Amino acid sequence: MSRRLTVAAAQLGPIQKAEPRAAVVARLVRLMETAHRRGAEVVVFPELALTTFFPRWYEEDINAADHWYEQALPSNETAPLFEAARKFNIGFHLGYAEIAHEADETGVVRKRHFNTAVYVHPSGEVVLKYRKVHLPGHREFDPARKVQHLEKRYFEVGNLGFPVVRAPIGQAGPVNIGMLICNDRRWPEAWRVLGLQQVELVMLGYNTPSINQDAKGFEAHHLRVLHSHLSIQAGCYQNACFGVGVAKAGVEDGCELFGHSIIVNPQGEIMAQATSWDDELIVADCDLDQCTLGRTSIFNFAAHRRPEAYGRIVEQTGSVAPAEWQPAARTAE
Amino acid sequence: MSRRLTVAAAQLGPIQKAEPRAAVVARLVRLMETAHRRGAEVVVFPELALTTFFPRWYEEDINAADHWYEQALPSNETAPLFEAARKFNIGFHLGYAEIAHEADETGVVRKRHFNTAVYVHPSGEVVLKYRKVHLPGHREFDPARKVQHLEKRYFEVGNLGFPVVRAPIGQAGPVNIGMLICNDRRWPEAWRVLGLQQVELVMLGYNTPSINQDAKGFEAHHLRVLHSHLSIQAGCYQNACFGVGVAKAGVEDGCELFGHSIIVNPQGEIMAQATSWDDELIVADCDLDQCTLGRTSIFNFAAHRRPEAYGRIVEQTGSVAPAEWQPAARTAE
Repeated sequence: MSRRLTVAAAQLGPIQKAEPRAAVVARLVRLMETAHRRGAEVVVFPELALTTFFPRWYEEDINAADHWYEQALPSNETAPLFEAARKFNIGFHLGYAEIAHEADETGVVRKRHFNTAVYVHPSGEVVLKYRKVHLPGHREFDPARKVQHLEKRYFEVGNLGFPVVRAPIGQAGPVNIGMLICNDRRWPEAWRVLGLQQVELVMLGYNTPSINQDAKGFEAHHLRVLHSHLSIQAGCYQNACFGVGVAKAGVEDGCELFGHSIIVNPQGEIMAQATSWDDELIVADCDLDQCTLGRTSIFNFAAHRRPEAYGRIVEQTGSVAPAEWQPAARTAE
Repeated sequence: MSRRLTVAAAQLGPIQKAEPRAAVVARLVRLMETAHRRGAEVVVFPELALTTFFPRWYEEDINAADHWYEQALPSNETAPLFEAARKFNIGFHLGYAEIAHEADETGVVRKRHFNTAVYVHPSGEVVLKYRKVHLPGHREFDPARKVQHLEKRYFEVGNLGFPVVRAPIGQAGPVNIGMLICNDRRWPEAWRVLGLQQVELVMLGYNTPSINQDAKGFEAHHLRVLHSHLSIQAGCYQNACFGVGVAKAGVEDGCELFGHSIIVNPQGEIMAQATSWDDELIVADCDLDQCTLGRTSIFNFAAHRRPEAYGRIVEQTGSVAPAEWQPAARTAE
């Protein structure tokens, strides 16, 4: 193994609504210490890793939800994470709700809310920031749902694209890193935009309920894990990269999250899997040179892709109905 | 089940180089009869289903390979297929090498070669034609390979896009059908272009060797089936459609093809799987209304897709290297 990176996925058990940030950060620091003891050079925490998955709670005034967001990183409450990173010489990926005071597309500076992830170098410097593009759920209170899913209410669509950066991580030397957040992992477009930038390691956190409230009978519960794994495994295989998919798991605020965090290689194989619904660390040795096979053979994009046939992917948002077939006889009538 | 379509996948065992078309067509007709007895309304045959996978054989003059192609469909040799379709009232999907005398992009009419598939109505009329877009392999003889893979030599890139048509099939009423061929199934762009046209049933044939000659040690043989299934299952799940992936299987001209044809539902589940390396028919009842859940909830494209973030998919063919991260300290130097 010439470019070996030891990666840890730090699954979190539930974070109940009342749990203070300081207690959560203490859990993260313990996991980071465990990761260090197991030789990991980078640890990946899930989406919205500092709080409960608050988009299940409705607030008529969205500003009343601001206490779930980070106004700065690090803050007094999150500083111990940065200190631990320095102490253990370990980089970390963290998902959190972000409030940013910045200009919108009209140029007006205002308070903006994003579902965000960062990769932080052991030095404490933020190397890469990503803001979730594919926000699932709905904007308004839905009386038909037992549990709300208000991501479209609480977050703006991410405005940073799908960035990839070549950054030093551990002993492997520079690694091309990118991020997705939760629902993004189901969208092959998102993986492909990362793949087109030669991503080698995709870090992604998720909070996904075990029950699909939209299903109305069609979707067996066990398929929820299949869908998550299928999307990550296909994304890694088809873009010749490693993926670290890290869950919040267990019964949080009465809502079950299915967990089953995985680390996946460029062959689409699961290298490690969490099987509890609790704080759980899994580790895998990633030989980054394994990314080479796919991108120089079957997924040599320059040799094989045909963008002239992909126009609909950017020209359409929703789907359109196809034409009806007209049998020759009928056409002649 | 309100819109039930009974679908058969007719896997083929090997077709050796010397096997005459008439013998192959007789095998296809027997499979079609079996499909009819099992209640199937449509039967899907593989890619290049009338001959051996001839792109493994090099010809310096590509016109010397013309005997592998169909100049017309039906021909005297393929007419029994069309007769059987009428007799059994069953539609069929057929992959074959096509010679077409038609204008190229410069307007000049010339002899052109494509890797083609058609869906034929029980009446014998061709409902939909597709020509393979993602041609794998290479154009020139490669002395380093034990077996050649000359698809880029023998075929032009398909010029029909990824068409979908709404056509009557069986008792289900009109069904939105589309096609992929072999290597296309690994490309999520191809699936998405079909999904954006509300495809409900994707028919796809393949000829895939058990050994990846490009792998040089990294790729365990059993992963080849994983990759095929992963791509089809993810494509079906992420586009909320059924998929019928049908192989040529077994040792053909000394080259092993891994088979493992599958029928997949919109949840990404495998409903039926061939496990021999021989002519083998598998059947599944497809409730086309199962396509509705995905496309009205998690994969409601109009509600959730973000084409403004997908630009690279059409603006780039090959990948580009990402920027190097510049630590703040170094930037200040």
